[in-house]
Amino acid sequence: MAGNEVKTKNPSSKQKSGGGGGKKKEVKKETGLGLTNKKAENFGEWYSEVVVNSEMIEYYDISGCYILRPWAMSIWEIMQAFFDPEIKKLKIKNCYFPLFVSPGVLEKEKEHVEGFAPEVAWVTKSGQTDLEVPIAIRPTSETVMYPYFSKWIRGHRDLPLKLNQWCNVVRWEFSNPTPFIRSREFLWQEGHTAFAKKEEADQEVLDILELYRRIYEEYLAIPVIKGKKSELEKFAGGLYTTSVEAFIPNTGRGVQGATSHCLGQNFSKMFNIEFEDENREKARVWQNSWAYSTRTIGVMVMVHGDDKGLVLPPKVASVQVIVIPVPYKDADTQGILDACSATVNTLVEAGIRAESDLRDNYSPGWKYSHWEMKGVPLRIEIGPKDLANQQVRAVRRDNGAKIDIKSADSVVEIKKLLDHIQQNLFEVAKQKRDECIQVIHTWDEFVQALSQRKMILAPWCDEEEVEVDVKARTKGETGAAKTLCSPFEQPELPEGTKCFASGKPAKKWSYWGRSY
Amino acid sequence: MAGNEVKTKNPSSKQKSGGGGGKKKEVKKETGLGLTNKKAENFGEWYSEVVVNSEMIEYYDISGCYILRPWAMSIWEIMQAFFDPEIKKLKIKNCYFPLFVSPGVLEKEKEHVEGFAPEVAWVTKSGQTDLEVPIAIRPTSETVMYPYFSKWIRGHRDLPLKLNQWCNVVRWEFSNPTPFIRSREFLWQEGHTAFAKKEEADQEVLDILELYRRIYEEYLAIPVIKGKKSELEKFAGGLYTTSVEAFIPNTGRGVQGATSHCLGQNFSKMFNIEFEDENREKARVWQNSWAYSTRTIGVMVMVHGDDKGLVLPPKVASVQVIVIPVPYKDADTQGILDACSATVNTLVEAGIRAESDLRDNYSPGWKYSHWEMKGVPLRIEIGPKDLANQQVRAVRRDNGAKIDIKSADSVVEIKKLLDHIQQNLFEVAKQKRDECIQVIHTWDEFVQALSQRKMILAPWCDEEEVEVDVKARTKGETGAAKTLCSPFEQPELPEGTKCFASGKPAKKWSYWGRSY
Repeated sequence: MAGNEVKTKNPSSKQKSGGGGGKKKEVKKETGLGLTNKKAENFGEWYSEVVVNSEMIEYYDISGCYILRPWAMSIWEIMQAFFDPEIKKLKIKNCYFPLFVSPGVLEKEKEHVEGFAPEVAWVTKSGQTDLEVPIAIRPTSETVMYPYFSKWIRGHRDLPLKLNQWCNVVRWEFSNPTPFIRSREFLWQEGHTAFAKKEEADQEVLDILELYRRIYEEYLAIPVIKGKKSELEKFAGGLYTTSVEAFIPNTGRGVQGATSHCLGQNFSKMFNIEFEDENREKARVWQNSWAYSTRTIGVMVMVHGDDKGLVLPPKVASVQVIVIPVPYKDADTQGILDACSATVNTLVEAGIRAESDLRDNYSPGWKYSHWEMKGVPLRIEIGPKDLANQQVRAVRRDNGAKIDIKSADSVVEIKKLLDHIQQNLFEVAKQKRDECIQVIHTWDEFVQALSQRKMILAPWCDEEEVEVDVKARTKGETGAAKTLCSPFEQPELPEGTKCFASGKPAKKWSYWGRSY
Repeated sequence: MAGNEVKTKNPSSKQKSGGGGGKKKEVKKETGLGLTNKKAENFGEWYSEVVVNSEMIEYYDISGCYILRPWAMSIWEIMQAFFDPEIKKLKIKNCYFPLFVSPGVLEKEKEHVEGFAPEVAWVTKSGQTDLEVPIAIRPTSETVMYPYFSKWIRGHRDLPLKLNQWCNVVRWEFSNPTPFIRSREFLWQEGHTAFAKKEEADQEVLDILELYRRIYEEYLAIPVIKGKKSELEKFAGGLYTTSVEAFIPNTGRGVQGATSHCLGQNFSKMFNIEFEDENREKARVWQNSWAYSTRTIGVMVMVHGDDKGLVLPPKVASVQVIVIPVPYKDADTQGILDACSATVNTLVEAGIRAESDLRDNYSPGWKYSHWEMKGVPLRIEIGPKDLANQQVRAVRRDNGAKIDIKSADSVVEIKKLLDHIQQNLFEVAKQKRDECIQVIHTWDEFVQALSQRKMILAPWCDEEEVEVDVKARTKGETGAAKTLCSPFEQPELPEGTKCFASGKPAKKWSYWGRSY
C-alpha cells in the first residue's frame, strides 16, 4: 500500500533514531536529513517525502487515511481562527449534525446521490450484531441536514437560516490517494444556508468565495482564480458551483481550492423546505452549501515547497522564527544561549511566534536542515561575532537571503522581514502560475499547450457534450483534460470567435487543463 | 424509537408554526410554550422536552444520534475556548488521527478491547463493494495512536509526548440513549500523553483533572467530587482512573463528569513503546489518556433546569442578557425600541453577550417564556415607565428576582448580577447535592439510603468481589448500585471500622449509588 512504501522510505525515523544518543550518533543524524527526491524530477515522491519528513503527516495503516500531526494541525487551526469569526460576522452559526445517514434520506436527491454513491462507506455491524439497515457515513451533509431545515423553517421570519459545522467526512475513493489532496477521510467546514430570495443566496455564494480567496491569497500565499464551474463539473444536485482554482506548475494540474455552491431549489423541492412568505403564500427556499478542507494544506505544500523541504508562509506558520545558537569552542557559550532566550522572549512579547532550539545533541548545521525541512520562514543565528556586535543573523527560508540585524531593532526588522516573506511567496507563486497560463484558439494549440502542462484559457461554446468529447479525446495515462472554471474576469470575446473544440460560436472564456 | 416519540411531543414546532403569520396566530403561540412535563414528576420526559424546546437538540432519524443545534454548540465552543488554551500552556499539542481502526490494532490490548468490543461500529462496504477486511470506527483512540507513539518515541529526548484531539467517537450502545448523556456518536477531546517517569504521568493526571473540575464548577456551576475509580469501574486496560463525579438529585444518580486515566505501562508493553534513557537503557513509557465530552452539557441541563426550561450559567451562555421592549398602546414605542438597542450596544461594548428581541409579531409575555425556556440568565425589560425614569428592569432567570437599574449604571450592575447568578447557581446546586450525601456504616443503612436516592458515602474493604456482590444484590429495574469514586478528600477512618457490605476491615471511604 502506498502508505507503507513511503513509510519505509521515510528518513524522519532516522532523524529520530539517535534522539537519546550522544555526540557520535549525532554525526550520523546529519546523513538522515534532506530529501531523496527532487521537486522538479519526481514530484509525487517528493511530495510524499516532504509531508512526512516535515512531520506534518504520518502514513496510517489504512490506505487513504493519514495522521495529521501537530505541525499540520496548527496550520488548520490558524485558518480556522480566521474563517470562523468571519462567518460569525455574517450571522452564520455553528452546529453539529450526526456522522451517520440513513439510506432513505441519502438517496432522496437523485443526481446528488449518484455523485457520491460509489464512495459512500457503509456501517453494517455493531459488535457482532448486524444492523437492521446499513447506515451510511456522511460524504457531505446536505441530505443529513435538509430534512430538519424543512422542519425548522415555517415562515419568512425563520429565514435566512445559516448554519456551519466543522467536522470529518468520508469518501472512500479508489483513485490513488494523496495526503491532504485526496484522502478517504478529511476535515472541513461545511456551510448550509437557506434564503427566501435567490438574490440573497447569489450574494452569499460570492461573500463566502471571497473568504476562500483570502484564505488562499492572504494566508497560504497562493494565487487563485475565482470562477464558475461548467455544468459537467458543478456540484451534484446543485444549481451552479463557484470555486477558487489553484494551479500546480510542476505537474501542470489545476486544483479546486474550495467551492461555494448555489443549490437553487433542487433540494428544497426534494426535502420539501417551504415557507409562508409575506403574502401568506407558500414558497420554496433558495439554498447554498460551501466548504473548504484540509486540502488547502496540501496545495500550500505543492506550491511553496522546495528541495530542502516545506516552505511555510509566515501567517500560517506555528513557528515563524526559530532561534539557533552557533557556539564555537572557546566562545562564551552561556552568553550565546542567554542571547537566544532573550531574543525569543523579546519576539514573543511582540506577538511573533518564535522559538529557540537549544538542544546540545544536535549541531547547528543539523538544526538548520531540520528547521528548513519544517519550513520555518525565518532562522535567527546567534554566534560569538553576533554576540560581540550586539546583532543577530537572520536567514530567510524563501530565498536564503542572510541579513544582519541590530539586536535593538530585532522586533521591527523581523516583523518587516516576515511581511516581505509572506508577500514574496505570493508574488513568486503568482509569477510561476501566470507563466503557465496560455491563451489558445484552436484544437491544435490546445493539444500542444496541454502537452506542455499549461493552464489553458480558451474560447468555448459552453456545451456539455463538447466538454465530454474533449475529455474523451484527451484521455491518457496522465489523465483527461476538463474545464477548471470559467473565470469571473472574462477577457474580451470578439464577435465571431469560435469554440476551440467544436468550432461553434464561443459563448465564454474558460480555463482548461488536467486537475487533481 | 425514542427519538420519534419525543419529536411528536415536541411543542417547539408549534412555536415555529406561525412564524410567518399575523397577530391572530401569535395568540395561539402562547399556548405552544412551556413544558408539559415537570422536573419533579417525570424527570426523563422533562429532560427530553427541555433539550428540544430550548432548541439545543433535535432528535435524529437514527436512534441514539442527536443534532447539536447552535444553542448547544455555542456552549461546547465556550468550554473549548477555556480548555484548549489551558492544555496548550501545558505544552500539549493538537493533532488529528483517523476515524477508522484496523481490526488487528483494535484487538491488541485485550482488556481494553473487551471493554469496547460490543459497542464498536464496523464498516464493511464502500458503495456496492465489500471491503477486504471490516474496519472499525474509533470508540476511543488509544489503539489508533499508540502504534505511532512507538514509532515516534526513540530516546528520552522525544519525551514527554503530549497530544490532544477534538473529534467525534462512536459507541453503538443499546441501553436507552439520552441526548448528551448517552449517545451513539458524541464530541469530545481526548488527550494522549507519554512520559519517561511514572511521577510525571501521575502529576499530569491531577493537572488535567483540576481543569475538568474547573469546567464543571467555574463554568457549568456544578459541584463535583474528585476521586479515584474502583478496579471494577476503571478504564479498560488502564492502571488507574480518576474522575470528577457529579450527582443528579432528582434521579438520585451519580454521573461521571470527565475522566483522567493513568494507563501505566500496559499499552506501552502491548504496543512496544520503548525509549533509551539517559543511561542508554531501554525503558517503557508511562502513559495517560483523558477526556471530557458533550455529556457535560447534559449534566448542566439536569442540574440547573427547571419547569420553565433551561437555566444557563452566565459563563457558558451565548446570550447572557436578552433585552425585551414592553410597549403599551399610546406609549412612545419608537423611543422604547431605541432604548433597547442602545442598551444592547452599551452592554456589548462592555463585553457582555447581550441581544434584543424586537420582533413585532410576538407579545412581551411570549418572549419572556421563550427566553426563559432557552435559559438566558438575565432578562432586561424596557417599558414606558422605565423610559421615563431612565432605568431598566432586570429579571433573573435563576430566582425570578426583579431589580430596577438606572440606565447609567447598567454595565456595572449587570456585570455584578451575572456574577451573582453564576455564584448562586453553584451554591444552590451544591446545597442540593450535599443534602443528598449520606454517610452509612451498615448494609441496612445502605439499602435504605439507596431507596432514598442518596449519594452514599460508606467505609469499604476495597475488594472487587464485594463490589460485584453489591451490584448483584441491588439489581432492580432502577439499576444496580456501584462505586462512584473513592474521594481524594477522605474523612477520618477510625481503627476497626468495618466494610458496610462485607464486614471486613474497611480500607477507605467510597461513594456509592446508581449512576448514568
